[in-house]
Amino acid sequence: MALLSGLTPVLLALLCLVVGFLLLRSRETSKTTSRKPSEGKERPWVDQDLQDDSETTAAGGGEDDGWVDPAEEEDLAHVPYSPRRYSEESMLQRSTDFYRLMNQRRSVRFLSPEPVPRDVIDRVVHTAGTAPSGAHTEPWTFVVVSDPEMKHRVRLIVEEEEEVNYRQRMGDKWVQDLARLRTNWIKEYLDVAPYLILIFKQTYGILPNGKKKTHYYNEISVSISCGILLAALQNVGLVTVTSTPLNCGPQLRLLLNRPANEKLLMLLPVGYPAADATVPDLKRKNVEDIMVHV
Amino acid sequence: MALLSGLTPVLLALLCLVVGFLLLRSRETSKTTSRKPSEGKERPWVDQDLQDDSETTAAGGGEDDGWVDPAEEEDLAHVPYSPRRYSEESMLQRSTDFYRLMNQRRSVRFLSPEPVPRDVIDRVVHTAGTAPSGAHTEPWTFVVVSDPEMKHRVRLIVEEEEEVNYRQRMGDKWVQDLARLRTNWIKEYLDVAPYLILIFKQTYGILPNGKKKTHYYNEISVSISCGILLAALQNVGLVTVTSTPLNCGPQLRLLLNRPANEKLLMLLPVGYPAADATVPDLKRKNVEDIMVHV
Repeated sequence: MALLSGLTPVLLALLCLVVGFLLLRSRETSKTTSRKPSEGKERPWVDQDLQDDSETTAAGGGEDDGWVDPAEEEDLAHVPYSPRRYSEESMLQRSTDFYRLMNQRRSVRFLSPEPVPRDVIDRVVHTAGTAPSGAHTEPWTFVVVSDPEMKHRVRLIVEEEEEVNYRQRMGDKWVQDLARLRTNWIKEYLDVAPYLILIFKQTYGILPNGKKKTHYYNEISVSISCGILLAALQNVGLVTVTSTPLNCGPQLRLLLNRPANEKLLMLLPVGYPAADATVPDLKRKNVEDIMVHV
Repeated sequence: MALLSGLTPVLLALLCLVVGFLLLRSRETSKTTSRKPSEGKERPWVDQDLQDDSETTAAGGGEDDGWVDPAEEEDLAHVPYSPRRYSEESMLQRSTDFYRLMNQRRSVRFLSPEPVPRDVIDRVVHTAGTAPSGAHTEPWTFVVVSDPEMKHRVRLIVEEEEEVNYRQRMGDKWVQDLARLRTNWIKEYLDVAPYLILIFKQTYGILPNGKKKTHYYNEISVSISCGILLAALQNVGLVTVTSTPLNCGPQLRLLLNRPANEKLLMLLPVGYPAADATVPDLKRKNVEDIMVHV
């Protein structure tokens, strides 16, 4: 007891240390897990960069899980809808034709510098904007870069990050695999393509009162809209390669002067294919391997 | 000092309590944040249900950030690619026509029970399968439900969860807002539509040696493919409503006998519009509001 009583101040100090240490630790944990979007030179990982903020807010998206916004819709009139109807024969023909057209689409890395009519690009982007979106928020911004200087600055950012990915972030296995590949972190097409389309998802909106408005399913919505964009490009004979530049989002956002609620989802170089363009001889799965009838 | 010495056992007990409490708390924190996907009757939140497992693995997706798989591609021949080229005039016309077609697309909740040729559905799904995907993993499964009994079971699961959402999960504000809406958790179209297309994302693949293969960007890839699917439906005069049923994924996966690596991303009821179908009189943003030229 005498020994213990002598130890009392030590015990008190120990208590303080333990409490302090544990508090610090629990704060660090919540810092790692909350994954605030990083900015500027921090080189965030792709999972931070691509994170869809709407999915971290508790569900409650409303009717159809956020695809309808009651506040928007309650005052809206409902109008008759009767789109064009085709005969069964015509449906079969149209579905076959569209399949053939889309099945010719490939990711192409060898683009021609030939100019492309800007009106066509505008119409293609407008088409992408017809996609459905969670609560009809239309949470997309398409930044179309044609200025050679700006394209080059985009390239420098992407190549710098890609080189870091190759050299530092990937394991030995990756580096070995990649050594055998023809492609590397040099992305000439970012200079060559007449247009770069950078697609930003708006992770939240700003209400007139300045408060944030949740954009439910913004990443899914913007990806759907990219699918329609790819279809629209293919429909006019233009090519692209779907890319999601690792860790470049914040730098490209700042370069292109986009607000903080926008995050880069995709970067598409767009143009005609180069005369000597090649693609890897990949095959697609058969329809039986992707479809199940019940 | 004597007082303190008498307090020593109390201090010791306090120390134990504090340490125990803080340890417990930090364990709870990591439990909440690790968000393992749940199965069966656990009613997971949508952020668990929709989580894209690929994005939680450290980046390292390889060339083009996971859109190319070096292991797949190194042995592939590269073949010339020269798709059809259109005149500028023709490009303008085609882009305008496709915009007009896509701009007529609306989310429609009032479907006709009329049968739709199955070959058209197959062709539409096949078209969706031409989408690009991370590392060409084609991480999608389209389950097409036409059996009336099975459609009804899908409806029961969706309606049960929707009712729980309405009654329990949404705040008072939502409940008030929703009371003024015509729609509620009754989803008649799930019985009425001749087809339900349930789109699953394969969050990982299984290699021949039984190991898991990462599917980079599986959610983005499958969403892009849904965009092409929506375009293909619109192209043949069929309608749907994009829905991501809250919390139903695990139950629907079990009902439809899909493996554990597949997670429900979207549910699309598909058919002709009902003769008296209406849609809310929503407008889309102007192209200037979604596009920026640089």
